[in-house]
Amino acid sequence: MIETKGYAAQDENTPLAPWTFNRREVGAHDVQFDILYCGVCHSDLHQIKNDWFPGIFPMVPGHEIVGRVVKVGDHVTKFKVGDLAGTGCMVDSCQVCENCKQDLEQYCLEGNTQTYNGMERDGSMPTYGGYSNTIVVREEFVLHISDKLDLAAVAPLLCAGITTYSPLRYWKVGKGHKLAVLGLGGLGHMAVKFGVAFGAEVTVLSTSPAKEADAKKLGAHNFVVTTDAAQLKAARGSFDFILDTVSAPHDFNLYLSLLRTNGTMICVGVPPEPAQVAAFSLLGGRKSLAGSGIGGIAETQEMLDFCAEHNIVSDIEMIDIKDIQSAYDRMVKGDVRYRFVIDMATL
Amino acid sequence: MIETKGYAAQDENTPLAPWTFNRREVGAHDVQFDILYCGVCHSDLHQIKNDWFPGIFPMVPGHEIVGRVVKVGDHVTKFKVGDLAGTGCMVDSCQVCENCKQDLEQYCLEGNTQTYNGMERDGSMPTYGGYSNTIVVREEFVLHISDKLDLAAVAPLLCAGITTYSPLRYWKVGKGHKLAVLGLGGLGHMAVKFGVAFGAEVTVLSTSPAKEADAKKLGAHNFVVTTDAAQLKAARGSFDFILDTVSAPHDFNLYLSLLRTNGTMICVGVPPEPAQVAAFSLLGGRKSLAGSGIGGIAETQEMLDFCAEHNIVSDIEMIDIKDIQSAYDRMVKGDVRYRFVIDMATL
Repeated sequence: MIETKGYAAQDENTPLAPWTFNRREVGAHDVQFDILYCGVCHSDLHQIKNDWFPGIFPMVPGHEIVGRVVKVGDHVTKFKVGDLAGTGCMVDSCQVCENCKQDLEQYCLEGNTQTYNGMERDGSMPTYGGYSNTIVVREEFVLHISDKLDLAAVAPLLCAGITTYSPLRYWKVGKGHKLAVLGLGGLGHMAVKFGVAFGAEVTVLSTSPAKEADAKKLGAHNFVVTTDAAQLKAARGSFDFILDTVSAPHDFNLYLSLLRTNGTMICVGVPPEPAQVAAFSLLGGRKSLAGSGIGGIAETQEMLDFCAEHNIVSDIEMIDIKDIQSAYDRMVKGDVRYRFVIDMATL
Repeated sequence: MIETKGYAAQDENTPLAPWTFNRREVGAHDVQFDILYCGVCHSDLHQIKNDWFPGIFPMVPGHEIVGRVVKVGDHVTKFKVGDLAGTGCMVDSCQVCENCKQDLEQYCLEGNTQTYNGMERDGSMPTYGGYSNTIVVREEFVLHISDKLDLAAVAPLLCAGITTYSPLRYWKVGKGHKLAVLGLGGLGHMAVKFGVAFGAEVTVLSTSPAKEADAKKLGAHNFVVTTDAAQLKAARGSFDFILDTVSAPHDFNLYLSLLRTNGTMICVGVPPEPAQVAAFSLLGGRKSLAGSGIGGIAETQEMLDFCAEHNIVSDIEMIDIKDIQSAYDRMVKGDVRYRFVIDMATL
């Protein structure tokens, strides 16, 4: 076994603290890479807090992981020692179901294996995430990372990046479309960058007037303060797509009213309570409310390559791992522009 | 003015009763036709009961109207006296907005004019529906009816027919698709006929085991009793599309779980309360919950022509207009196979 240092939550109420644990030995099809940076996703906190389902503790969060390969198994062909490498929200899937065969491992019919707060497929041990110094992942779930980009700022692409890139690609959002991005946080700021890169006219919908300057700097063409009734009224019926990145409770019918006829609102955030959707909000304009979860491995690689080609990374604030709790506190208040990334050298 | 006989609700609590009212004179662009049959839609009762919004009383319901032309205006070119004619849920729209120009009058950006319980566009008088002996409608909103089909059984096509035909066409449901029809009532039985005609594998989802024989007779390939946990479990993740025709409260998350990855559930019914939709029900498989409202005029004509070509009509029970209240009582209990149609000769 490989002795690993990390930060773990021992239960839902205890602050994260140093913890040493074992990872499996590097198998014939595995890649081991030392972690240099790990992004901090709001879902890390949701899972520690058991917001969605009871968690597996001790929990080592983190699923926006980049580093450098230190060991590869005998049958590994795509990576060699010294390569940059990354891993996102999944570390395994069945690989044989209809969805896996179509590069949709995120929708594996047997359930994919989450990078942390899950169980290895053989049931032997829990998975532990990227708030740690090294990780062992089967080759198919390790991504190539370009050396052209700021490595720390690449980390959030593994979740915030692919989660917004994938639906924009699936729904073919681009030139001639009016795209609204609801919420300008870790996911939202990536959605703005991708929407602009794909040629859409991008509007940020936010409760925070203070974010307008940032939105414009990120490339957004318009900004609507959603607490301003007049601005909202002016935006009614205007968007082809809304990418909804908000995980807090919000009024879905209000935002559906901002869609044009045949428009689609795509949810990538996970509010704690079910949305209340009035039938007329959908019928009155043949509208759709859709959901999308991360992206497949091939698409994640495509996204990373696209980012390297177009010089797209996340806007980040680097933190020491000892400051993770205060980072969570700021994240909950929306006080981060736009993603915390842990410098793993501080572990 | 044209003195017209009909049945009206004087308020939400009073049974329908005979009532005489005036319709406008036949204008240059109007068609007047004497009503031979009018279908009874569940929404007639919803509107009388103010279930969706406060109604305009006295209210003459009915928006599945067929009859024979008795007078045409000077500029009318598409109809002549003696022609069969029909009118559905709309009798007017702005005709100039982006949606009207794309034959989507049902989504007219200024709001279409409902056949009853609405106001004429000049604000002069309420609109009165098809529970009456004659009607005056602008030419653009009058449909041609084939004389090949049973005229009484054509009436429900004007609402139940187009409401199910339109979404199946818009989402291109056909060969290679597994389509579930949720609810086997007026809308559901038409959805089965169209789904089968378009080449889909059709499954009826119903709480009533007694409807299985009918479902099969209508052409459905499979039947799932939704109160049977084992049958539901076996159907999980199996449908490309669900056409949800149910207007009673129901569990949307349960039915979303029956969709395959990338599947779409299309609502055409209007439950009284908002649906509760959990984020994971959509995210876990990139699913969509959509809505669709009736269809445009050109598409309604296309549907009527398709029905004439493929010999498709509604399964009906003919009633005398004096029995409308007991028909409502049976409709509420789902005791109609599958649409009541009023024989207007009984007025």
